[in-house]
Amino acid sequence: MSEIFKHHLEKFIEVNDTEFLDILAFFQVVKVRKKENLLLEGQICKSNYFVLNGCLRKFFVNEKGTEQTTEFAIENWWITDNIAYENQQASEFYIQAVENSEILVIDHHSQEKLLAEFPKMERYFRFIFQRAYAASQMRIKYLYSFSKEDFYHQLNSKYPDFVQRIPQYLIASFLGFTPEYLSEIRNKKRS
Amino acid sequence: MSEIFKHHLEKFIEVNDTEFLDILAFFQVVKVRKKENLLLEGQICKSNYFVLNGCLRKFFVNEKGTEQTTEFAIENWWITDNIAYENQQASEFYIQAVENSEILVIDHHSQEKLLAEFPKMERYFRFIFQRAYAASQMRIKYLYSFSKEDFYHQLNSKYPDFVQRIPQYLIASFLGFTPEYLSEIRNKKRS
Repeated sequence: MSEIFKHHLEKFIEVNDTEFLDILAFFQVVKVRKKENLLLEGQICKSNYFVLNGCLRKFFVNEKGTEQTTEFAIENWWITDNIAYENQQASEFYIQAVENSEILVIDHHSQEKLLAEFPKMERYFRFIFQRAYAASQMRIKYLYSFSKEDFYHQLNSKYPDFVQRIPQYLIASFLGFTPEYLSEIRNKKRS
Repeated sequence: MSEIFKHHLEKFIEVNDTEFLDILAFFQVVKVRKKENLLLEGQICKSNYFVLNGCLRKFFVNEKGTEQTTEFAIENWWITDNIAYENQQASEFYIQAVENSEILVIDHHSQEKLLAEFPKMERYFRFIFQRAYAASQMRIKYLYSFSKEDFYHQLNSKYPDFVQRIPQYLIASFLGFTPEYLSEIRNKKRS
């Protein structure tokens, strides 16, 4: 299973087998069950998560008491509350498993040690954050330029497998509307 | 003026004077005048910009023909269209000077060479992207949880100097409403 991570690293940096085992030793491999929480609002965000298999999501509870999903992470994605993780502060978010998942977990202190021992991991994480930031810039553009309905159609045409894979009430929670409204849009499209 | 950049680098990595001069040689120092464009929609995004002094903004033109500002960069901030820059593709954005500004400019090829020659710059950019990504995660949370009016009040209370400094029509363009509506909110607050 950890081969998935090696393969991912090798997209960005060169890592031989010995180095990979040394790098991997900084992580824990953890299995989580669907709906299990990895982080709760108000908790110190201690860890950064890499999905080997499965799916996690990040959400906050808005003032109406509704879960608003802001991010999903499937295979080969990292997820955490980055501000709270970097500053080792209480988080405003929850992180929860959407499916039974197998993940790599690293805590902040171990990640610092990993970066000090393997400076090439700076390059790896530079790429990871660079791409994550670029993706979030486009996300912000979409949030400004699309109606919620257009945003759904965009998601559906760009990532059909993802939309099929994720429970519809979570897609609705990501798009910021009710499951009923999502179902209405889907029916409208079919008719 | 380039001392500003050295000071900024030293927040993240150690750089001696000789190294700094070698690093600086990868950049051009450029003066831009207020309203001058550094990037136009449809152009290949060749450069990454660091603000020494002044202010830049990034915007796109929405389907109504209105400029929608998605990002500002003041002193010590980087700005570019990161997806287009990384892939050396045509951009969907404009980058324009809000004030007469002095900036450092690096093109993609030079940045790659800089990273190869000074691996410690990987660490520097890892921090830059990590923080930029963390900030955009919070921005996305705000976009979901605040009304436009609340978003303005939040901006005003967290960054009063910034709101004072930037022309009000650009604050309106950033918040996604008309200058008239912004003026209404401001008057309501005063009354």
